[in-house]
Amino acid sequence: MAIDIEISEVGPRDGLQSIQTIMSTEAKKKWILALAKAGIPEVEVGSFVPAKLLPQLADTAEIATFARDIKGLNIAVLVPNFRGAQNALQVMPTKMSIPLSVSETHSVRNLNRTHAQVLDDVKKIAALVKEMPTANRPKFEGGLATAFGCSIEGKVSEDKVVELAVALMEAGCDEVGLSDTTGSGNPAQVRRLIKRVWEAVGKKNLTGVHLHNTRGQGLANALAAIDVGITTIDSSMGGIGGCPAAPGASGNIVTEDLVFMLEAMGLRTGVNIDALMQARAVLAQALPNEPLYGFTPNAGLPKGFEPATKW
Amino acid sequence: MAIDIEISEVGPRDGLQSIQTIMSTEAKKKWILALAKAGIPEVEVGSFVPAKLLPQLADTAEIATFARDIKGLNIAVLVPNFRGAQNALQVMPTKMSIPLSVSETHSVRNLNRTHAQVLDDVKKIAALVKEMPTANRPKFEGGLATAFGCSIEGKVSEDKVVELAVALMEAGCDEVGLSDTTGSGNPAQVRRLIKRVWEAVGKKNLTGVHLHNTRGQGLANALAAIDVGITTIDSSMGGIGGCPAAPGASGNIVTEDLVFMLEAMGLRTGVNIDALMQARAVLAQALPNEPLYGFTPNAGLPKGFEPATKW
Repeated sequence: MAIDIEISEVGPRDGLQSIQTIMSTEAKKKWILALAKAGIPEVEVGSFVPAKLLPQLADTAEIATFARDIKGLNIAVLVPNFRGAQNALQVMPTKMSIPLSVSETHSVRNLNRTHAQVLDDVKKIAALVKEMPTANRPKFEGGLATAFGCSIEGKVSEDKVVELAVALMEAGCDEVGLSDTTGSGNPAQVRRLIKRVWEAVGKKNLTGVHLHNTRGQGLANALAAIDVGITTIDSSMGGIGGCPAAPGASGNIVTEDLVFMLEAMGLRTGVNIDALMQARAVLAQALPNEPLYGFTPNAGLPKGFEPATKW
Repeated sequence: MAIDIEISEVGPRDGLQSIQTIMSTEAKKKWILALAKAGIPEVEVGSFVPAKLLPQLADTAEIATFARDIKGLNIAVLVPNFRGAQNALQVMPTKMSIPLSVSETHSVRNLNRTHAQVLDDVKKIAALVKEMPTANRPKFEGGLATAFGCSIEGKVSEDKVVELAVALMEAGCDEVGLSDTTGSGNPAQVRRLIKRVWEAVGKKNLTGVHLHNTRGQGLANALAAIDVGITTIDSSMGGIGGCPAAPGASGNIVTEDLVFMLEAMGLRTGVNIDALMQARAVLAQALPNEPLYGFTPNAGLPKGFEPATKW
């Protein structure tokens, strides 16, 4: 099915790692299956970090192996370092991302690693990826975290974002991504930064953005990104994860509201909204004590609504 | 102070008419004063409807008279018909709006009036307005309600929106507005409809939009409107009012999040965000049992944030 904008559902990774509840492996499988059935083209299924650091994602290898066999579904995984990448490659993901925090203070404090150290790992991982047989080779993405602002450093230099985007490509990444880790971005900044990175690395090497909803700007920022030509948007079912700043605030862009916006605008996501609501019900059942956000699920679709995606 | 985008705070009208609590006249005055102190340039202070229909707004005349005397503040009022306009003109508002629902089914069912009947009233009101001394003459706006969709009729014809915009101008309005009464609109539709109405009535005769957040599209739709050149956006402090579809969903665009978006984008609203948060505290104190929405108030401003408006 031809699609205009690709939704990358990050709930199983970014969502689940941020909440206390540990979802069972069985429930995760059921949820991912429901997402795939709704037509979600890509799911970020987990992160290859030590289980003692993120017990919520301890079953990432099993989940990835399960999800990889769902027809038509692309799977993305996160890796923090070389060791994580070695493990990740065994499950043969479609996409493998490593974060590099543009704020070096953030990088050192949170991950205990300098830019140079991360870039060194990126080089080694890229070499490993290139050894894979073409059929099993994932797209290797360098994700520029805190690209729109840092809660420690404050403003982040756009020159530095551009410089590190180039460094990631030179270190062997297939593409880069921009992440608004702290939910500080605004639509003007989103448009400006995307264009600046494109000038430096080429349009085909930055196709996706990961935007948070911390200050309620998620959909407006996604619109801004799509306006200039971004084709992949990360979002999370029920808005779970993404470091919500407070109760009542979703941290991630809510997949349900994003799909509604795009489909209403005439942009095909390949997603069936009714089936998406069924996937939400599966998630709600698996996380009975976690709040799920989103407006469209409560309000329902407008009377006479015609989605762009025809099922 | 030069501003780029004018925020029209509709909380005292659209907000208060939608909630059960009746705010005291004293509390309303305190709130409006705090809004004005924060630099909000226009407040919709009430509606000239019979007190038995909307007891929440029974003190509109007193509130309007009070607010009119606040230096630098423009005041807007809503009138449902000729009688309401007669009463409204006595308080000499800066702007006076009459709604005309593009969905005639909605107009007849909710207001018991056909398009022809409303337009007839508009003509009589316009004549009354023209008799006023220039100094006291309000801007008379025809607000096209359900312009983006109707919960009864479903899709609303864009040709009909354009036709009624022209009819309102011919009946003597100074300008028209577009209202997404049901929160059905999307950014593509917002841009398209604004441009179509501009083609028909001229750009200077449509400068403001009233968008709801029912399906979470409020800020994205506001961005779309601003992108094409709209200069006035209605919003409500704490998102109160605007027919929220469900608990947890704000019906109106949240003023606090809108001001953050615009100021972050480099667009001057004339609003001081710290003082705006103080006005929110005044509102919270006056409505202790009503939920207030908004992300920015909880998350706070990003570290190192520089607003466009310099105080």
